[in-house]
Amino acid sequence: MKIRCGKNDLVSSISIVSKAVSSNKTSMSILECILIEVSNGIIKFTANDRELGIETKVKGEIEENGVVAIDANIFGNVIRSLPDGEVLISTDSSYKTTISCMKARFDLPGRSGEDFSGLPLIEKKDMITISQYTLKEVIRQTIFAVSANDNNKLLTGELFDITGDRMRVVSLDGHRVAIRNIELRQSYSDRKVVIPGKTLNEISKILSGEIEKEVNIYFMSNHIVFEFDQTLMVSRVLEGEFFDVDRMLNKSVYSTTVTVNKKALQDTVERAILLIRDNDKKPVVIGISNESMEFKIKSNIGSMDEFVDCSKNGDDIIIGFNPKFLLDVLKVVDDENITMYMIDSKAPTIIKDETEKYIYVVLPINFANV
Amino acid sequence: MKIRCGKNDLVSSISIVSKAVSSNKTSMSILECILIEVSNGIIKFTANDRELGIETKVKGEIEENGVVAIDANIFGNVIRSLPDGEVLISTDSSYKTTISCMKARFDLPGRSGEDFSGLPLIEKKDMITISQYTLKEVIRQTIFAVSANDNNKLLTGELFDITGDRMRVVSLDGHRVAIRNIELRQSYSDRKVVIPGKTLNEISKILSGEIEKEVNIYFMSNHIVFEFDQTLMVSRVLEGEFFDVDRMLNKSVYSTTVTVNKKALQDTVERAILLIRDNDKKPVVIGISNESMEFKIKSNIGSMDEFVDCSKNGDDIIIGFNPKFLLDVLKVVDDENITMYMIDSKAPTIIKDETEKYIYVVLPINFANV
Repeated sequence: MKIRCGKNDLVSSISIVSKAVSSNKTSMSILECILIEVSNGIIKFTANDRELGIETKVKGEIEENGVVAIDANIFGNVIRSLPDGEVLISTDSSYKTTISCMKARFDLPGRSGEDFSGLPLIEKKDMITISQYTLKEVIRQTIFAVSANDNNKLLTGELFDITGDRMRVVSLDGHRVAIRNIELRQSYSDRKVVIPGKTLNEISKILSGEIEKEVNIYFMSNHIVFEFDQTLMVSRVLEGEFFDVDRMLNKSVYSTTVTVNKKALQDTVERAILLIRDNDKKPVVIGISNESMEFKIKSNIGSMDEFVDCSKNGDDIIIGFNPKFLLDVLKVVDDENITMYMIDSKAPTIIKDETEKYIYVVLPINFANV
Repeated sequence: MKIRCGKNDLVSSISIVSKAVSSNKTSMSILECILIEVSNGIIKFTANDRELGIETKVKGEIEENGVVAIDANIFGNVIRSLPDGEVLISTDSSYKTTISCMKARFDLPGRSGEDFSGLPLIEKKDMITISQYTLKEVIRQTIFAVSANDNNKLLTGELFDITGDRMRVVSLDGHRVAIRNIELRQSYSDRKVVIPGKTLNEISKILSGEIEKEVNIYFMSNHIVFEFDQTLMVSRVLEGEFFDVDRMLNKSVYSTTVTVNKKALQDTVERAILLIRDNDKKPVVIGISNESMEFKIKSNIGSMDEFVDCSKNGDDIIIGFNPKFLLDVLKVVDDENITMYMIDSKAPTIIKDETEKYIYVVLPINFANV
């Protein structure tokens, strides 16, 4: 194998595929390698940790075809350290890989591609297309509610639910629910898939997020494929029936609705969090009466008391929340004002806009003995 | 006690004194507190971990004198979280401290100042004055060579050696020596003091580094005092006779001197470091012949070979270094070219400018079995 590539092209390609390199530090395992494949006029980098696989095409000149697997971390460090310029990468028969750029030359040990597990065979038939911006945004706006623990594997992923020209993205962890409704550019046949949170995290780091750029999403029985720019990303999907959020949302008659400036609310909640040590379950208690919300929190550290202006419809209410869960929602809502819909101090509170582009549900917590 | 201060004035004063707050997490120890003292028309914050003490004057209006000690970390978090504006801080008879700003109010527990160990009594007679810029720079340029381990306590500090209108700053750790010579604006009586590296680290974070601003340094028998802006910083000094570097520097006749572009050398050394895992003692071996330095390093990770142009006087030489020690020096020399002075492959190599504003000494390492 012998190729010539620009240093910066190599750096960005390595950065993309590295998201699928296993981070379990074993000793030079094949899962920690990038596979460099040169054939048919294409230079391709692939990484695959068996949950997530990424391949990307690299710009460059081919002098000789070939395949080599090389430690991703070392390869990345070496390439990034080189001067800006043309980089020559070549291998000998024992897979020793020589990297030269100007007066610098590195020799790194390589491996044959034999043991490398390639990506699954991809069927490109069942597809939807959305903008990179939309996908990146919807991940940011929902990923925080994905369950952090493995007790219910399905909740470590997000439901992508397509019905006609609508896509609904749902995540939940037992304390809160995040729902985003997106209008698609055309209608597609209905389907549901649960995508691992890790996959969504990694793809959102790679996506440029430009509105003009697109992502093709292909649905296969056990995998989902994202195709964008020069890159193909293949992830396993999670098996099982996702929690039915409609049952939770449909039953509600709200006794109190309150509209409040989002920034003011967020600042207050951030201050309340200062009085909570890690793992402490202290609620912030919100007393809502006409025109004002009073926030109170008391802990070993100290106490806080603060008023925020609001406009209220319905009954006065006193309700307690984990302020961190409120903050997670407030961080990803970009509206100037938000409206909270409440039934009573025990039932889930809903934060949503009028058109239900977003619906967030937060469970209150008991504040009786505060 | 009752005072009104601007939020931003409070934030910067807390940030200054926090450098002397003990980071040993015990339970609300007095060493983790800031003392707020209001008397004689002055608001003063003090922190003191018994090695290092800092006090700073805070702008504000006084409504009632008083003293309170308050947990530095919580106090800082709360003040930083407040909206920009005027902050009212008051205490009651049980030292409960109330902090209000606009519609937000915090109550934090406070303690009497009784147990707080104040700063030692300061004699302001024996003094030198330098610019904040000079002090901040000289610390940056020497602090890396301070010994990281406590085996020889004295080497965890830096020698500040004043002779007439010269100040020499020296640090060393057994592998390398850093020396900076500074011209003072006037002559002072001779003195030597060894200042703990930790103190120098903390002061360099606080100093604005402006050329027009000054620092007064007072010498006491067991302490050194830095006075600048609204702040007074008192540190213990280290006792004992510092290593005599002149003996090491004076004996030398150099068989090889080599001048090389600093940036090119630094880039090459940074690449060599990529092939070293933590704690690995692999040397980079430098072969110097006419007009070029060849850098070679070989490890389990791979090997590197690179040429850098240079101009040489004297004999060809092959010499090995820990590349990290070379890099530390190169990072703090701002000249375009540097000159290395060598005796042989076993003797210390010296990197210095012609006027000896800086002298760095790096011990070579054995490369026989590389």
